[in-house]
Amino acid sequence: MERPFIVKPGDSISLNGVGKGCDLERTPEYTGAYRKKGETKKPLKKLNKQMLKLQELLYAENQHALLIILQGMDTCGKDGTIRKVMAGINVQGCDVVSFKVPSVDEVSRDFLWRAHKAVPQKGKIGIFNRSHYEDVLVVRVHDLVPKSVWKQRYQQINDFEKMLVENGTVVLKFFLHISKDEQKERLESRINDPSKHWKITEADIRERAYWDDYMQAYEAVLQKCSTDWAPWYIIPANKKWYRNLVITERIVKTLEGLDMKFPKPTSDVSILSVD
Amino acid sequence: MERPFIVKPGDSISLNGVGKGCDLERTPEYTGAYRKKGETKKPLKKLNKQMLKLQELLYAENQHALLIILQGMDTCGKDGTIRKVMAGINVQGCDVVSFKVPSVDEVSRDFLWRAHKAVPQKGKIGIFNRSHYEDVLVVRVHDLVPKSVWKQRYQQINDFEKMLVENGTVVLKFFLHISKDEQKERLESRINDPSKHWKITEADIRERAYWDDYMQAYEAVLQKCSTDWAPWYIIPANKKWYRNLVITERIVKTLEGLDMKFPKPTSDVSILSVD
Repeated sequence: MERPFIVKPGDSISLNGVGKGCDLERTPEYTGAYRKKGETKKPLKKLNKQMLKLQELLYAENQHALLIILQGMDTCGKDGTIRKVMAGINVQGCDVVSFKVPSVDEVSRDFLWRAHKAVPQKGKIGIFNRSHYEDVLVVRVHDLVPKSVWKQRYQQINDFEKMLVENGTVVLKFFLHISKDEQKERLESRINDPSKHWKITEADIRERAYWDDYMQAYEAVLQKCSTDWAPWYIIPANKKWYRNLVITERIVKTLEGLDMKFPKPTSDVSILSVD
Repeated sequence: MERPFIVKPGDSISLNGVGKGCDLERTPEYTGAYRKKGETKKPLKKLNKQMLKLQELLYAENQHALLIILQGMDTCGKDGTIRKVMAGINVQGCDVVSFKVPSVDEVSRDFLWRAHKAVPQKGKIGIFNRSHYEDVLVVRVHDLVPKSVWKQRYQQINDFEKMLVENGTVVLKFFLHISKDEQKERLESRINDPSKHWKITEADIRERAYWDDYMQAYEAVLQKCSTDWAPWYIIPANKKWYRNLVITERIVKTLEGLDMKFPKPTSDVSILSVD
């Protein structure tokens, strides 16, 4: 399932459903061979179990870290993805970092400083809920820094991620792709359900006016920062159950690909005896 | 189930199964009304579900943090507790911090510095796998600092934890109580199973020689640092399934006791409309 979702360097991306680069598989409502939620339940459960085993091996081997970056528009399902994809995982081996509006301490440094501080240790899975990519997304859309500054950042991000990969961190980047209509429905369902009011602010709705600008900014990210060492995946995310399946499968396949082994003990443990 | 496991200030504690303070409920093999693993499966599953809901409320309300401190001898089950008690939790709302041998950076500060840095944010559950208590346990047993230094620390810890509680953090402290025989069995099973060799070092076995000194150090901790604001619980931990049940129940009851509510939105969300 790597294809058709991976973005290859040089791919031309159109997120609004028109033009070159807009294959069916890259539309938000795509669900592959699946028609409804029930059909993905069993394969997802199996993948969750595999992931737990692979996570233990990752921890035991202590040679790699896995960094998962989640990006997408408001309501695209970053939180839900973390909840469902990581269901049943050992919390001790997984750190989630949410990138909010930067603090004074953070804006006083380069934009990669806080991201670098937050990368996972070897043996662990780290999840970035939003990330350093906000510095070429919200920052670009709202002109928070001059263009001359943000346009250098694509290359800086690629270099930074290359360094991480060369030092043992595997990087997976998922763009949770929902349609503008789907966002409308999700925002409305939050407005109509008082128990969800705490999840929503007027700002969320105001931000929606910039939809097209965001799509443009995301297209730039996907085209400039999907590298051989740290690829982006465009995840069809209108259907939560399909989104969860695709992402979980990708993580499992990636961990399997590391061909990890339980490490040998430093001393010959088998001759030890316990008093 | 708070009683009989909570340690009340002034309680006299004997961990080696003799003398005053050694009630049946405080012995490692105690399993209450339960006789075997199967019997706790259903209640534990129910508690795990309750915990997930309470965690969402904790996150939404954003008024409290919950700090869970796990201590106990090698093989007592700290890792297993985290895996099983937190099964099904939302990883995004839970941070686990393992306290290892302090770094140069850490020993250059007071012993509470690294613990303080690691406390959970409001809305989150933080788990300390080992903690600042090591500074009156391993440090005391191996004379790593003079007695005049470590004996001040009990009061310093009580003051620190009081400050945390007064500022919105709920503190639960669990001593996972296994017997020396049970540790022998667990160490031997690691030695006999090559796939578990990575979990064991000669140091683990050497450390066992200090069992009685550790019990004495733990008794001091339980007697001096179980406070009204941050109580210690002695968890019978020879049977993993009973240990998991007792701890999960205690966490659920504690979160329930906070009487949390979903917060009101800052603006009247119901009048918003989505274009």
